[in-house]
Amino acid sequence: MHAELSWADRRVARALAEVGARRPLVHCLTNIVVAGFTANVLLAVDASPAMVENAEESGAFAAVAGAVLVNLGTLSGEREVAMRSASAAAHGAGRPWVLDPVAVGALAHRTALAADLLELRPTVVRANASEVMGLVGAGPGGRGVDSLSGSDEALDHARELASAHGCVVAVSGVVDYVTDGTDVVVVPGGDPLMTRVTGVGCALGALVAAFAAVDDDALFAAAAASAVFAVAGERAARGGPGPGTFAVAMLDELGALADGVSPARA
Amino acid sequence: MHAELSWADRRVARALAEVGARRPLVHCLTNIVVAGFTANVLLAVDASPAMVENAEESGAFAAVAGAVLVNLGTLSGEREVAMRSASAAAHGAGRPWVLDPVAVGALAHRTALAADLLELRPTVVRANASEVMGLVGAGPGGRGVDSLSGSDEALDHARELASAHGCVVAVSGVVDYVTDGTDVVVVPGGDPLMTRVTGVGCALGALVAAFAAVDDDALFAAAAASAVFAVAGERAARGGPGPGTFAVAMLDELGALADGVSPARA
Amino acid sequence: MHAELSWADRRVARALAEVGARRPLVHCLTNIVVAGFTANVLLAVDASPAMVENAEESGAFAAVAGAVLVNLGTLSGEREVAMRSASAAAHGAGRPWVLDPVAVGALAHRTALAADLLELRPTVVRANASEVMGLVGAGPGGRGVDSLSGSDEALDHARELASAHGCVVAVSGVVDYVTDGTDVVVVPGGDPLMTRVTGVGCALGALVAAFAAVDDDALFAAAAASAVFAVAGERAARGGPGPGTFAVAMLDELGALADGVSPARA
Repeated sequence: MHAELSWADRRVARALAEVGARRPLVHCLTNIVVAGFTANVLLAVDASPAMVENAEESGAFAAVAGAVLVNLGTLSGEREVAMRSASAAAHGAGRPWVLDPVAVGALAHRTALAADLLELRPTVVRANASEVMGLVGAGPGGRGVDSLSGSDEALDHARELASAHGCVVAVSGVVDYVTDGTDVVVVPGGDPLMTRVTGVGCALGALVAAFAAVDDDALFAAAAASAVFAVAGERAARGGPGPGTFAVAMLDELGALADGVSPARA
Repeated sequence: MHAELSWADRRVARALAEVGARRPLVHCLTNIVVAGFTANVLLAVDASPAMVENAEESGAFAAVAGAVLVNLGTLSGEREVAMRSASAAAHGAGRPWVLDPVAVGALAHRTALAADLLELRPTVVRANASEVMGLVGAGPGGRGVDSLSGSDEALDHARELASAHGCVVAVSGVVDYVTDGTDVVVVPGGDPLMTRVTGVGCALGALVAAFAAVDDDALFAAAAASAVFAVAGERAARGGPGPGTFAVAMLDELGALADGVSPARA
Repeated sequence: MHAELSWADRRVARALAEVGARRPLVHCLTNIVVAGFTANVLLAVDASPAMVENAEESGAFAAVAGAVLVNLGTLSGEREVAMRSASAAAHGAGRPWVLDPVAVGALAHRTALAADLLELRPTVVRANASEVMGLVGAGPGGRGVDSLSGSDEALDHARELASAHGCVVAVSGVVDYVTDGTDVVVVPGGDPLMTRVTGVGCALGALVAAFAAVDDDALFAAAAASAVFAVAGERAARGGPGPGTFAVAMLDELGALADGVSPARA
C-alpha cells in the first residue's frame, strides 16, 4: 500500500499539537555540527531537548526520556559507549528510539557500529538514500550527509531494511518515503534549500523522535514529522531567501505551525 | 533586603561599558549545543570568548583568564577532568568563576560532580529553579535546561545554597533572583521567547562571568548581566518574531546595547 | 612581488564556480564553537562538508577527501589523535590540507602539537597575526582567536614560516596577506563585523580547503577564498546590521556569490 501524507491531513496537525501538549523529553546523542539547530527545532515545536552524551549518564537518562535520538555524525570513543548504552536502555525500557546513521556505508567503522545498533531494534531509522543502501550493504554509502542517490532508488532497500529489523525506515530526499517494510507512506514537499544548510536532516531525526514519543504508531509518527518539516521548509523558502535566512526561517515556520495548533498559544 | 535592578539603573550601563573597554577573556568550558551562541553573545558585548576544554590546557588557561565559565551541559570524561582543573586553577588564582549546573538533580553523576565543584567556591552559580533545588537536595532537579519549578519557589533554596558555599546564586526564571544569601536582587523583564531557543540561559552564565571579570562585587555583576539579558530579550521580542528570528535579534540587541555605551563605537 | 587579489579579478569567480561544479568533499576536524557555521559556509558555496573527528576514521577519511581542515580550537585527547592521523594521511595521499592553529603561542601544549603538525607539510596555514607569531616563536600568540597584532606586523613572520615549511601562509586581518615565502598576495576588503561574530576566521580556513581541493596553486587558492570572504563580509555589512543579522547575511551573500557564478543555478 502506498499512501501519501502531508500537512493537509489533519492528523498531522493533531500529532503536532500532541507534541506541544505533552512536551516530550527527547534525549539526543548527536553531533557537534547540528546540536544547536536540533535543539532549536525541538524547542520551536515545544518539545524538550536534552543532549546527554557521556558514558556514565546516557543509559540511565535514555530509560526515562520520552524518546532517544542516536545520530552518528561526529563519533568519539566515549560517544560510542554512550550510544550503545542509550540504545540498549531505550530498547530495554520500551522507549522509542531513532537511529540516524550519518555517512554509514562510506566508513567501515561506523558501518559496523550501526550494524550493532540495529540489533537493539531502533523504532525508526532516519537516513538519506545512500545511507540506507550502506546499511543493507547495497552501495558505498554517503559522503557525509550529502546523499549520492535519490530517495526513490533506495525504497526497495528501505523496505528490506525495515523488514529485516522490524523498524520503520524514513528515507529523506526530494520526496520522503517512510516504510515499515509492508506499507509505504510518501511525503511530498520540502525545498532544495533544505539541503543547503546543515542540520536539516539531522534535526528531522530529532523531530521524528518527538513524534514517536507521543504516538505509538511509528510509521505515522515518522511520516507526520516529515510532513511538518516539508511544509516548514516550503514556507521558509518562499521568496527565495539565501541559505542563512532560510535556516532562521525554518525555525520561525516550525514555531508558527506549533503555535497554530496550540490551544495555549492561540 | 530586596532590591531591584534593571537596565534603567545607570550602573548597569556603566558595567556593560566596562566590559567593552576591558574586553575580558572569558574561558568557557561549555556544551556542544550552545558553544556558538555563547561565543556570539560575548562577542556582541565586546568580551573575548575562548573555549578551551581539554585536560592538558584548561587549568593553565583558567589561571590567566579574566573569568571562567563551567557549564555541565554535555559532559565527557575529559571535559570533567578539564572542569575540575579549571575550577581549581581559578579558585587558586583568585579568578572569578561561574558554575552552570545544567540538569543537576536529575542525574546522579553530575549532581556528585557539582557537589565537588561547589567545594572550589564558584563566584556565582547561575541556574534555573530546578537546578538550584537539585543542588541543595530539595528536588528532583531539572529536565535538561527546562526548569520544572518557578524561580520564586527556589529563592529560599538559593539563599541556603549561597550561604552554605559563600557564593552568589542567580536563579533564572520569569523574574530572576540574585542572592548572596543575605541580600536579594530582583531582576524583572525578559520574555517567554527566551525559553524557546537554546542557549539563552547558558549564554547568560557566560555574560555573568564577563561582568564578574570587571567588577569585584559578584552580587552586582550577576544581577547586572541578568538585567542586560532581560532588556535585550524584551527588545528582541518586539513585534512577536518566530524563535529563529528572535535568537538572531538577541545578538543584535546585545550589540546595540554595547554600542550605545561604548565611547569607541558611538 | 606583491600582487592584489579581489572579487573584481575574474579568476576568483572562476575558482568559485569550480568549487560549485566539483563540490569538493572537505573533511573538517574543527571545534565545537564553529562547526555549524563552518558547514553552512561550505554548503552555501556548494562544497560538501563532512566533520569526522574520531581516532578510528579520521585517517582513512582524510585520504579520500578533496581536502582536509585541521582547526585546533577545542582540542581533546581523541581529537588530537584524529588530527595527527588525518594530517599524516592527507600528506601521504597528496591531498591538500589546511592548518588553523587557533590560540597557538598562548598555550604550550597546542604550540607543541602545531609544531608536530607542521612537519606533515600543511598546504596552507590560515591564522591571525598573533598565531603566526606564535608558530615562529616570535610572540606570545593570540588570546583564543582574538588577535593582538595587526596582520601587517606578521607578514615577515609569515614569509619565514612559509619558507621554513614549504607551505602557503594566509594571515587574516584588516588586510589579508597570503604568501608562499616569496610572493605575497594582498587581499583587501572585509568588514570589522567579521570579528564580532564567532567562526568567520575558522570558516575561512574551511573555504581555503575547498578552493585548494579544486586548484593546485595553493597561493592562489588561499587568496581567492580570502577574496570571496572579504566581499561577502562587505556586502553582509551593508546597512550596518547587528552581529546576529550579520552572521546570517554572510551565508546569504556567500550563497548569492555562488549562485551568480553557477551555470546550474543561474
